[in-house]
Amino acid sequence: MRNAAVFRLSMAHPGDLSELDRLITVGTVHASDIVAVIGKTEGNGGVNDFTRGYFTQTLMALLSNRLGKPASQLIGEIPCVLSGGTEGVMSPHYSVFCIREDESAARQGAVRLAIGTAFSKPVPAEDVGRRAHVESVAAAVRQAIADAGIERLEDVHFVQVKCPCVTVARAAAAIAAGKTPLTNDPNKSMAFARAAGAFGVALALDEIKPDGFTEAALLSDFTIQSPRASISSGVEVEANEVIVLGNSPAWGGALRIGHRPMTDALDIGAVVDVLDDLGIPARPQVAAADAARIACVLVKCEPDRRGSIRGNRHTMLDDTDINAQRHIRGAVAGLVAGVIGDGRIFVSGGAEHQGPDGGGLIAVIATPAKGAN
Amino acid sequence: MRNAAVFRLSMAHPGDLSELDRLITVGTVHASDIVAVIGKTEGNGGVNDFTRGYFTQTLMALLSNRLGKPASQLIGEIPCVLSGGTEGVMSPHYSVFCIREDESAARQGAVRLAIGTAFSKPVPAEDVGRRAHVESVAAAVRQAIADAGIERLEDVHFVQVKCPCVTVARAAAAIAAGKTPLTNDPNKSMAFARAAGAFGVALALDEIKPDGFTEAALLSDFTIQSPRASISSGVEVEANEVIVLGNSPAWGGALRIGHRPMTDALDIGAVVDVLDDLGIPARPQVAAADAARIACVLVKCEPDRRGSIRGNRHTMLDDTDINAQRHIRGAVAGLVAGVIGDGRIFVSGGAEHQGPDGGGLIAVIATPAKGAN
Amino acid sequence: MRNAAVFRLSMAHPGDLSELDRLITVGTVHASDIVAVIGKTEGNGGVNDFTRGYFTQTLMALLSNRLGKPASQLIGEIPCVLSGGTEGVMSPHYSVFCIREDESAARQGAVRLAIGTAFSKPVPAEDVGRRAHVESVAAAVRQAIADAGIERLEDVHFVQVKCPCVTVARAAAAIAAGKTPLTNDPNKSMAFARAAGAFGVALALDEIKPDGFTEAALLSDFTIQSPRASISSGVEVEANEVIVLGNSPAWGGALRIGHRPMTDALDIGAVVDVLDDLGIPARPQVAAADAARIACVLVKCEPDRRGSIRGNRHTMLDDTDINAQRHIRGAVAGLVAGVIGDGRIFVSGGAEHQGPDGGGLIAVIATPAKGAN
Amino acid sequence: MRNAAVFRLSMAHPGDLSELDRLITVGTVHASDIVAVIGKTEGNGGVNDFTRGYFTQTLMALLSNRLGKPASQLIGEIPCVLSGGTEGVMSPHYSVFCIREDESAARQGAVRLAIGTAFSKPVPAEDVGRRAHVESVAAAVRQAIADAGIERLEDVHFVQVKCPCVTVARAAAAIAAGKTPLTNDPNKSMAFARAAGAFGVALALDEIKPDGFTEAALLSDFTIQSPRASISSGVEVEANEVIVLGNSPAWGGALRIGHRPMTDALDIGAVVDVLDDLGIPARPQVAAADAARIACVLVKCEPDRRGSIRGNRHTMLDDTDINAQRHIRGAVAGLVAGVIGDGRIFVSGGAEHQGPDGGGLIAVIATPAKGAN
Repeated sequence: MRNAAVFRLSMAHPGDLSELDRLITVGTVHASDIVAVIGKTEGNGGVNDFTRGYFTQTLMALLSNRLGKPASQLIGEIPCVLSGGTEGVMSPHYSVFCIREDESAARQGAVRLAIGTAFSKPVPAEDVGRRAHVESVAAAVRQAIADAGIERLEDVHFVQVKCPCVTVARAAAAIAAGKTPLTNDPNKSMAFARAAGAFGVALALDEIKPDGFTEAALLSDFTIQSPRASISSGVEVEANEVIVLGNSPAWGGALRIGHRPMTDALDIGAVVDVLDDLGIPARPQVAAADAARIACVLVKCEPDRRGSIRGNRHTMLDDTDINAQRHIRGAVAGLVAGVIGDGRIFVSGGAEHQGPDGGGLIAVIATPAKGAN
Repeated sequence: MRNAAVFRLSMAHPGDLSELDRLITVGTVHASDIVAVIGKTEGNGGVNDFTRGYFTQTLMALLSNRLGKPASQLIGEIPCVLSGGTEGVMSPHYSVFCIREDESAARQGAVRLAIGTAFSKPVPAEDVGRRAHVESVAAAVRQAIADAGIERLEDVHFVQVKCPCVTVARAAAAIAAGKTPLTNDPNKSMAFARAAGAFGVALALDEIKPDGFTEAALLSDFTIQSPRASISSGVEVEANEVIVLGNSPAWGGALRIGHRPMTDALDIGAVVDVLDDLGIPARPQVAAADAARIACVLVKCEPDRRGSIRGNRHTMLDDTDINAQRHIRGAVAGLVAGVIGDGRIFVSGGAEHQGPDGGGLIAVIATPAKGAN
Repeated sequence: MRNAAVFRLSMAHPGDLSELDRLITVGTVHASDIVAVIGKTEGNGGVNDFTRGYFTQTLMALLSNRLGKPASQLIGEIPCVLSGGTEGVMSPHYSVFCIREDESAARQGAVRLAIGTAFSKPVPAEDVGRRAHVESVAAAVRQAIADAGIERLEDVHFVQVKCPCVTVARAAAAIAAGKTPLTNDPNKSMAFARAAGAFGVALALDEIKPDGFTEAALLSDFTIQSPRASISSGVEVEANEVIVLGNSPAWGGALRIGHRPMTDALDIGAVVDVLDDLGIPARPQVAAADAARIACVLVKCEPDRRGSIRGNRHTMLDDTDINAQRHIRGAVAGLVAGVIGDGRIFVSGGAEHQGPDGGGLIAVIATPAKGAN
Repeated sequence: MRNAAVFRLSMAHPGDLSELDRLITVGTVHASDIVAVIGKTEGNGGVNDFTRGYFTQTLMALLSNRLGKPASQLIGEIPCVLSGGTEGVMSPHYSVFCIREDESAARQGAVRLAIGTAFSKPVPAEDVGRRAHVESVAAAVRQAIADAGIERLEDVHFVQVKCPCVTVARAAAAIAAGKTPLTNDPNKSMAFARAAGAFGVALALDEIKPDGFTEAALLSDFTIQSPRASISSGVEVEANEVIVLGNSPAWGGALRIGHRPMTDALDIGAVVDVLDDLGIPARPQVAAADAARIACVLVKCEPDRRGSIRGNRHTMLDDTDINAQRHIRGAVAGLVAGVIGDGRIFVSGGAEHQGPDGGGLIAVIATPAKGAN
């Protein structure tokens, strides 16, 4: 029987993996158990955020040293999904997902956290944000669900995908090769890549059908959405990397995952409800005694593209000084961290087609209260 | 008997006072009743934020037209305190404070919102952030308390002060005149000006004694604090402008004010508690039916200068791209707006000595529930 | 005979017109002679730059007071074209263009600076960046050329147009009215508006023919360009405002204008050449003795959209922290100010279709050296 | 006889050392000849710029692989001085300094580029920006001059020092250990560290005497300056790293170095003059035929703290959105790149005490024209 464990670790800077190194040294973490990493680094979250690449390079060097495999191989085996930007009260941290085989364990009669991962082939620059990209993501998500051994699609609670995007340089190379990228604006490319990721998750989870959408619906028809998709995009990857998190009776361990869509950036109810699902009261805040039961908080959010929230104008989209994604991450993180009582939360912007328009989703992994179903 | 009323109005841009103009035209607001304005404009909140001056110029032109007095006179009679920066979910808006004499009204047996205002003399550049500045503020606050007719200092709940600061140009002029400004760094000057304002409020409210502090304590001894002070600083004023808000049995109207210190940027409890004080439940959010009872929300906050929040590192102070005050405003506004369910909240940074270190304060003006004391 | 004069004035902040006020008071400037203002204010130059509106409001109030006409009328008679953003060495300033009838003057046998202005009708949000916008600009430019009395199109050296753009709010209003704006992204709208302005100038100057382009060429076919067009776009205007600057034998005064296209952001040769055209040596810098002869320097520039300059990668387009237009303005201003020896230069970004791709143009108004043709 | 060579290489991102790797593979560069690297990475240049650490980690991994020594050893042997921030027209690049023993070479009768390096011991957080820091730098500079074999101090043209600074975390650790850092504001600490570096260079070059200054003069008495010092500061180093560049008759090779102080940010004359010193005409721009002779351009600059340049107000110091150092780097790089005709120039801000107040310095390494002395 497989047990899932999650270690939430702090970093002093994007190249600081000393906490993981220490846990491996003392034997708390077995390097060979690590299957995925999800983290928040302190860059700007945009095209020119190199904190993600820096962290990844450092992580892979550490694991290469520990496992005796080349970093270039590990980077294609262990998804490392980072979101740049720790605006406001967020604290730079990373969650290490581990799977350990426990042969002595028996079924507990309750569902437990299940983890699966997959990598697609590299996505050519000219495919980014197009149907070929959607299908590439969908195939990888199905593969990760199988890897997790999750049998019912409703038991999938969170699908993290990291998609490649084009930079000015990649776009130029593709054009030189006679290809036509969707755009050569990197920020726009990141948005299309995230949309393709969300459509791919929706397709894999049977939320939409292959003939139920056209390529033109990406970043256009926001009624199409997957409230379980969390998509990042960055210059540092060339293939789609997928992490599926769900619950399964075939897994052991102490953890379970829940999720809720967030209607808008003020939807504190969703935060409280997902904690309720796990038997953790938060009115108004998670008690100190319960804090240690929370292993990981994952949030997606989006500046409402209609320019207002509950009828009041916001200024995120018109700000030339601060990127709109930085604005919304800071605001939603302020809300969620206030309810959780902890700044070590993963809040990622760019939630196009990931939950309701102008909203997003929240997922929490925790040791559930006894009696919480 | 005096009645206080507060009108919370939206703006399309910092020069848009059309909503106030309309309310005066239809008779809802009497121009001559206006005693103060507090608002959030969509600038960056720093030295080079001119949205405050733009709004003020437009407001004074409107009132000049309506009242037949020169704008240059009105600007010295009606405090207009603006905080720049509507990060994240905040919505640009302004609250117009009005006092109307209602001779037919009788004492209700309950305390009601009381408003007082005052202006100090201009503060010379070399006095900014020094003891002379503290005393100048204290005198103006005492005058505003008297203006409000508040007899007990504990009935004062919120003291807004707008303090002048030095710009590079002002500092140069002072130096040329043989004076020595405390600093010629404008951002530093704004911080010292806010500290002087907080000390001045604490002095006026008898929270500290004249011989209980030295000039060196400003921005240094953070045990000295006034949890009812809200200080802004900006290049566009030359004198201290003061607005005192409290409760008094001598006033009529429907409104009351409450306040709570915020321990840190995650202190959601303070938000819920101040609403409780006014008989408005918010677990987790103010109900739609209660929303209209809230007239004004005023918050001060501060990036914790120790570099962490509840033990977790934050990155606000080390960010070269986004000013730390913009970070914290966005985060705390996200939290407070989530509980209130409305982005029209006044959240101002720079809370040095205004509430606990790394925290701040929240004040709410509302029509209290029956039975709320 | 008409004489043109240009007064280049400094401001302490975007609402500071005291220098103009003083010159009117002492009689150096006659308020009724003022036909146009071009200036640089210290905002960010983006959609949320309100320094332009603030300056304009202050200017119109001053002129209203001086001329006894309502500001609302003057704003439709006197083009006030501001570019936000004084990055790096640029100094906030404004140039006041005046025309004075001098009946005693006789033809000098040399061409002199000629000025003409025009306003179009308001441009509906759904027309912004489309052919209707192009034609609206072209008609206004032709009207301004006629106003200047310039008979040969080659004597036109600089055409400044300020075009309206859509904000999120304007786009939403148009959509609500059943119209389809080209985009609801304000920054994108500003770019399309600038393209429409450049096409309009090219059309009016007979550089392109009405059937020589399609709407799709805007922001797409960069072989279409007008090296005499300088287009700004901003939220604060609703109609196209046009200022035409050229030379004419029918005008008197001391000034003349020259211009040169700039090939790229490193084209120092263009700067030196346009000064040569006016008989002012600058190898490497304009001498102190010649400095006073320069009345106005006008520059347009653009971050090269191909991602490199002379084969070397630049990072302006990939920067999430600083807008690309702020980057390029700062760099080109550094170069031009270094040759001129003065930071009071107008450098405006967004030079799409205004000069060579990745480059722009420079125009200089000066008292020419004797013998300079 | 030692020959110095400099390879100026481009990078696609801060972790891209592929060009150096290629040159080593083809034998153009011998890894064991590399003694120093100076480069510009595309971060923000501030405390939270991790592109410097990312580049350094990648470089040291590459050299470790090539040389068979641990990276942790190499990082203490090969100074890698990076300045973050490629504002405007600057192109991310790095210059690799190599020394090769050429036993067959004979004295040429002309001076040639000489290179020396040194590392100090780690600087404790509480020493940063104090006299102990100054002396630590001076000792390392003297050691590097000896390493270069430069006998006359006037033959030293450029001394690059990278100094450690405190972060919020380092300051907190020092305070916890009972020490008193000069400041716990990281940006301020970087400025003091740069001042200490400049004083250290001036001391080593005999420009000031040990008893000719007090600790209080740092960032205060700007008459003390070293026009040959170029100081960077960053969170990623703990010791002072020094690179001395000068000319010596004892060295061979093709290169020579010259330098000039820059009076202010508009001092184009200094740029032209230093090129003249090397026999390279630039009126107005270096000719294409001469471009390949330039191996390296090194510039320091500073936003004038008095708030104006040649009498005209600048806005760099009052800008809350863009750091003043980013402003000035972009402007001065625009000027210098325009004269050189190439964006691959090293322009670093923070020139306190490095050249005239508000100015800085420029150094150029080139193959001199025949006859250039």
